[in-house]
Amino acid sequence: MATLGAPLKDGARPGVSPMTFRAPVRDLAFSLRHVAGFERLADAFPEADADTVAAVLEAAGAFASDILAPLNRQGDLVGARLENGVVRTAPGFADAYQQFAQGGWTSLAAPAEHGGQGLPKTLEVAVLEMVQAANMAFGLCPMLSLGAIEALELCGSPEQKAKYLGKLVSGEWTGTMNLTEPQAGSDLAALTTMATPDGDGGWRITGQKIYITWGDHDAADNIVHLVLARTPDAPPGVKGISLFLAPKVLVGDDGKLGPANALRAGSLEHKLGIHGSPTCVMLFEGAKAELVGGLGQGLPNMFVMMNAARLQVGTQGVAIAERAYQQALAFSQDRAQGRSAWTGAYPSRLFDHPDVRRTLVLMKAHIEAARGICLSTAVAADLARAAPDAATRTAAKLREELLTPIAKAWSTDIGVWVASQGVQIHGGMGFIEETGAAQHYRDARIAPIYEGTNGIQAIDLVGRKLMLGEGQAVGDLMDDIRDTIDLLKASDLKSVGLRLEAALDAAASATAWLIERRAKAMPDALAGATAYQTLLGDVVGGWMLAKGALAADGEADAAWAESKRALARVFAEAVLAQVPGAAAGVMIGAADFEAMTPEVLGA
Amino acid sequence: MATLGAPLKDGARPGVSPMTFRAPVRDLAFSLRHVAGFERLADAFPEADADTVAAVLEAAGAFASDILAPLNRQGDLVGARLENGVVRTAPGFADAYQQFAQGGWTSLAAPAEHGGQGLPKTLEVAVLEMVQAANMAFGLCPMLSLGAIEALELCGSPEQKAKYLGKLVSGEWTGTMNLTEPQAGSDLAALTTMATPDGDGGWRITGQKIYITWGDHDAADNIVHLVLARTPDAPPGVKGISLFLAPKVLVGDDGKLGPANALRAGSLEHKLGIHGSPTCVMLFEGAKAELVGGLGQGLPNMFVMMNAARLQVGTQGVAIAERAYQQALAFSQDRAQGRSAWTGAYPSRLFDHPDVRRTLVLMKAHIEAARGICLSTAVAADLARAAPDAATRTAAKLREELLTPIAKAWSTDIGVWVASQGVQIHGGMGFIEETGAAQHYRDARIAPIYEGTNGIQAIDLVGRKLMLGEGQAVGDLMDDIRDTIDLLKASDLKSVGLRLEAALDAAASATAWLIERRAKAMPDALAGATAYQTLLGDVVGGWMLAKGALAADGEADAAWAESKRALARVFAEAVLAQVPGAAAGVMIGAADFEAMTPEVLGA
Repeated sequence: MATLGAPLKDGARPGVSPMTFRAPVRDLAFSLRHVAGFERLADAFPEADADTVAAVLEAAGAFASDILAPLNRQGDLVGARLENGVVRTAPGFADAYQQFAQGGWTSLAAPAEHGGQGLPKTLEVAVLEMVQAANMAFGLCPMLSLGAIEALELCGSPEQKAKYLGKLVSGEWTGTMNLTEPQAGSDLAALTTMATPDGDGGWRITGQKIYITWGDHDAADNIVHLVLARTPDAPPGVKGISLFLAPKVLVGDDGKLGPANALRAGSLEHKLGIHGSPTCVMLFEGAKAELVGGLGQGLPNMFVMMNAARLQVGTQGVAIAERAYQQALAFSQDRAQGRSAWTGAYPSRLFDHPDVRRTLVLMKAHIEAARGICLSTAVAADLARAAPDAATRTAAKLREELLTPIAKAWSTDIGVWVASQGVQIHGGMGFIEETGAAQHYRDARIAPIYEGTNGIQAIDLVGRKLMLGEGQAVGDLMDDIRDTIDLLKASDLKSVGLRLEAALDAAASATAWLIERRAKAMPDALAGATAYQTLLGDVVGGWMLAKGALAADGEADAAWAESKRALARVFAEAVLAQVPGAAAGVMIGAADFEAMTPEVLGA
Repeated sequence: MATLGAPLKDGARPGVSPMTFRAPVRDLAFSLRHVAGFERLADAFPEADADTVAAVLEAAGAFASDILAPLNRQGDLVGARLENGVVRTAPGFADAYQQFAQGGWTSLAAPAEHGGQGLPKTLEVAVLEMVQAANMAFGLCPMLSLGAIEALELCGSPEQKAKYLGKLVSGEWTGTMNLTEPQAGSDLAALTTMATPDGDGGWRITGQKIYITWGDHDAADNIVHLVLARTPDAPPGVKGISLFLAPKVLVGDDGKLGPANALRAGSLEHKLGIHGSPTCVMLFEGAKAELVGGLGQGLPNMFVMMNAARLQVGTQGVAIAERAYQQALAFSQDRAQGRSAWTGAYPSRLFDHPDVRRTLVLMKAHIEAARGICLSTAVAADLARAAPDAATRTAAKLREELLTPIAKAWSTDIGVWVASQGVQIHGGMGFIEETGAAQHYRDARIAPIYEGTNGIQAIDLVGRKLMLGEGQAVGDLMDDIRDTIDLLKASDLKSVGLRLEAALDAAASATAWLIERRAKAMPDALAGATAYQTLLGDVVGGWMLAKGALAADGEADAAWAESKRALARVFAEAVLAQVPGAAAGVMIGAADFEAMTPEVLGA
């Protein structure tokens, strides 16, 4: 803990810890191996052996801790700026991005034929967790590029791949996703940006997009904008939307950069957090563009990459929670207040107060639960696309689809909660910006919102995912959890098994109720959707911790192994025990809500 | 709702609602009468009849909505500033304060002999809720003055009262509380600020205080600083601490203002929120001071007024939640996205989506529950000091003491949660600062921290309050709740009665366990303290809603009355149903926490 709990320097403000960060390499490796089932990827990714994984995690962790984390505070304070129509990134960001790309971190999971390293996306998720924890505003840049890479891989023509994909994979260029418009946030059917044929086989895009993450910047030579737009004579609604590619700088057939395209960042948003990430209003003023995929296929094409993006945002929730947790843990060791009920020491570090220790342990338990959910979702995604046999791919696809909304929503919800607890543990100093805890609280708040609000995730979960494979997706998940329950009940973690069993039974009841209601009265199901999403996240999170606890027996470090068991026990008593009651909140029905008017709800 | 959901002007950004605020006068009047039992104050405060209460609420609500609310955004953007050693308040704040004082709002509950209006403090709490909702940064100024008034009333000499009290009551001067020092946050025993006799019957104070709310400003002619300091030869620890009064400007025996005292604001904190409230580092450089109360009585004297201050902070939690809720409710009516599962309309206002409506209803339910808790605590405080008969005073004192930590902690916790939900309902726009929702999320975060962190409240609840009157305090509370359960079970709210009964039974079990453990192994009790505080808050909050639901039968507005019943039902299913499970989280014991070292908890 030396790097976290550095002794106070003379004259330093007591209790203000340096905002250092240590990448959680050990926990990530443990979660990959013992919780997420990374070994199931061995057939599809033989090169991702244990040594490779360890080396990648160590190197990425060092980069995140040493290069990215120190820039985080300046990114918040200075932020990105729009100067003379061009976005200037925060101090150090552009240089760090160059190092990031040169280090090969943008190409980890890309296919070899486009210059990638062909490793599992699961490993990329693990690496990006550390990047996001070190510097969430920075991490958004490669995260958006990954989306563009995936879209081109799946839908791009051979020419488009030749022209753009290698540069994105190498990180020489970055990518963006241009979806949202002022009148079309969660509702993409309402898009109005237009693409018109230029008479020369190409297209011209005109319109305004908002909330475009890293829409403009000075960290790379070019930016590949993927843009959803409507075409003339296209049908209304989502079927009239197509996907286009519009580079910031036009690219010749020889791959050389040409003149600037007719698009620009009109303004930057003044945001609550992630100030280092330039969130642009993008103006397309007859910008030259290429159609990607089929006409009218824009939304399906976006949906193909949406699972990956949602998982990445869920991982941001884990990441910002880890960052906030580390800072609170360090502070709790630096700061001495009052007498410890355990040691009797006075003054005692906060860490030795039972109430504070419990908070820290619960923060850690939620982080590890969410990490397990995200990495398990990633393993399912890797198996779904790359497992040798079709049956595995099919089952994994169901699992990926089912877990994605939970990974996104549950992890980002706990991100906000953990960051808030991080502020709380700092006491008054948590409210002072220079301490740094407040930045995490601000940064964390975006993750439940973007890439589909958590309410949208819940609607997706209840409206679509529960019926996947005619219910097989959720059925398979519950079967797997029951297998772990059997193991728990036969072990010295029986109490965890009983809590998990009661929680799973409640989840099963709530699931059955929702399936029945969604057929008969959709509002009843929708009114319980968010509560159900939280409930299922609690159950799956508890399952993740339980798997880790069972596997920890094999660890050489007995104290560390015991801590994994304790995390599972604490989560079971403090969280899983409430799940049976929470099922009532799912099955509440919509009648009492439907009857409420603005008038009776107003002041 | 016309003032909230104003139609969008041409060119206005879609979905950015004007940050208007309507004081919740109707809900406050309902809560006072039907939930908090304001009529029990009739004997002690005959002048506080229904007409007076209505007039006070209406006038205060108008002041809050019309004068204070419009300043809130500028207070956040510009904030208070330290210029040439003097604090300049945010635009409009000083003028608004003058109007506030001239309107008599600082003197509502002060005793008539010092120029006050002698009304119940409960009414003052209701008025300040509206003030804090309109402008939390502003509201802190009168809130701190109230603490100074109370301290002087209780501990001041006749001369001190003559010299200072009238000016504080009239609002011509304001007051502060100087407790915290860098090394002494939650732990006042560690204070080092020194007061030394000046040889002339007075004292000189030297030291540094931090987090001094409205420690300096330009809104009034003088500031009365109450300061905790140590005296020479005093015993170590809390018994060596005394309470002193040091005015910003020295006051002659004729009451006239003289030269400046040797104290000043050394710097202003850069905070996450409440930017309009100047949070000062105060430097006492041999400042002239008077002893208030007995030597060594500083802490007991502060504790006397601590209940009131904690209740006021709890009320801030209600207030910021109300503000955030109103903004989200307005936005949900302005913003149209997607198709409503209820109406089939497209695009449909967010309000007509079941998931959004449920969130709004749960926000409202938590606000009304917390408001009921705070106002009930205030009624108990008024009865404890002013009820004609001793038995009532004694019982009320127990109730005040027991409910105070819950009022403080539960209300401020839900303040953060509601403000966070308010951001969420705004979607991407919630993360943009100009929308205003983010300010509430930032402002709300301080309330769980100051005036004793919510963890300190939990320690107070479990460590002291449970044993009050040898357990009579909590026993009486549970008896009262059981009376309401009986009424519920005999009414058409039987389902609420059953949920409340199960929750109360669980609370009783958890209480018994804590009482047993605190005698045998205090860490076990302390490790469950925060979970217990939340649990008991849920139960008492559910009780408040249930009382309102039962009383609503008598209301003429049937739809409004039905909404009160619906709030109780929804809270019962969504919150109370989880309480039996939450009891397991209270009774978890400390062993798993005690075994956790920083090493196993670290990255």
